[in-house]
Amino acid sequence: MTTETLDRPATATDADAVADEAAYIQIQQFYARQMQLFDAFDAERWAGTFTPDAVFDLPTLDRPVRGRAELAATVRRNRAQAVRGGEQTRHWIGMLDVRPQADGTMHTRCYALVYVTPRGGEPRVQRVCVMEDVLVRSRGKWRTRCRLVTRDDLA
Amino acid sequence: MTTETLDRPATATDADAVADEAAYIQIQQFYARQMQLFDAFDAERWAGTFTPDAVFDLPTLDRPVRGRAELAATVRRNRAQAVRGGEQTRHWIGMLDVRPQADGTMHTRCYALVYVTPRGGEPRVQRVCVMEDVLVRSRGKWRTRCRLVTRDDLA
Amino acid sequence: MTTETLDRPATATDADAVADEAAYIQIQQFYARQMQLFDAFDAERWAGTFTPDAVFDLPTLDRPVRGRAELAATVRRNRAQAVRGGEQTRHWIGMLDVRPQADGTMHTRCYALVYVTPRGGEPRVQRVCVMEDVLVRSRGKWRTRCRLVTRDDLA
Repeated sequence: MTTETLDRPATATDADAVADEAAYIQIQQFYARQMQLFDAFDAERWAGTFTPDAVFDLPTLDRPVRGRAELAATVRRNRAQAVRGGEQTRHWIGMLDVRPQADGTMHTRCYALVYVTPRGGEPRVQRVCVMEDVLVRSRGKWRTRCRLVTRDDLA
Repeated sequence: MTTETLDRPATATDADAVADEAAYIQIQQFYARQMQLFDAFDAERWAGTFTPDAVFDLPTLDRPVRGRAELAATVRRNRAQAVRGGEQTRHWIGMLDVRPQADGTMHTRCYALVYVTPRGGEPRVQRVCVMEDVLVRSRGKWRTRCRLVTRDDLA
Repeated sequence: MTTETLDRPATATDADAVADEAAYIQIQQFYARQMQLFDAFDAERWAGTFTPDAVFDLPTLDRPVRGRAELAATVRRNRAQAVRGGEQTRHWIGMLDVRPQADGTMHTRCYALVYVTPRGGEPRVQRVCVMEDVLVRSRGKWRTRCRLVTRDDLA
């Protein structure tokens, strides 16, 4: 884990602060589309939902993924694997908590499920994770600047 | 599959368009209630969440279900089956993407899960699906005019 | 079951009434945070999301849990159990239906899933439930005054 490299501010935020209603909806819509692009292996458009300098960290990576080119490459590897494996994967988030920050960013924390369905077979829940993002808004859109995913099975 | 019979417009929509916040909430509320009516086998009220001329297509049907009488009959068959089988089914949607159209309709695309729980037993995820609707608003309510469900195991 | 002790009004509500959009978002945010506090075993802050006189009923309890001290004690028991069992539990709600009442409270009905992940193992869906709350708003916050959870496997 390399969380020390992430630019998540160390300052505590008001435990009771919530996003205003419009922002909360925008962020729900943002994640719905981001997850659908990921599962459709739409590498470039998915990478475009991150900032150019985004950092994506997972406990099983040697080092965080950095920037859109590396992010898109991850999706292309997933696509190749899915074609070989004949499985359909769906990423699903919920229990979305959004905390507005003094600098205008949003810190989100949600649960993330990964469902996998083999062709002709029964689906299964492959992973239960917690996903924490720093979101920034520019030119009318939210984008992920920083993501940390932790897996319940490795906790 | 009989998707050629569905009245989904062939024209491409702006890839970045999102529903306004109020509509997005209304549609979330609409689906929550529609799914609960379906799982409660409330045939008439569930059929009433579709337009009178609605078309519902599933890959495992010989032909799409058309109109409220046929929709309600589907629910009554489900109820009879559930009584025999002693299982409780729950339909759950998520990752809801809503795209407003020039004609005032909304095109939605979301993931749909089916959970089944036998009496006295462990629940399981029976299906992972993608659900695509055309929604129309009339007299203050959203209704489904056209639905296409695809199953990940048959993809 | 002791539902006769719950203060759920017996009067029928308009079958078509829905919460206004702002309230619906607030309640989504409320539940996201409440479930995350529960799964993090944050006993006091979780109990604080209920009214001081709250009643929480489950089919497997001899009698409903009453008040914040009893609610917090439940979380501390869960924590001790989780430490022994080495499992991570996640509570996840969806298909949230919210019905405004004449007295200013909100009656909610949603589905609730419980995912359990053993350390180093595969996750599973442990429970599928229906959760019904009476929510009240005071000092700018929603709180649960009354909760009834029913399990699909015991239905």
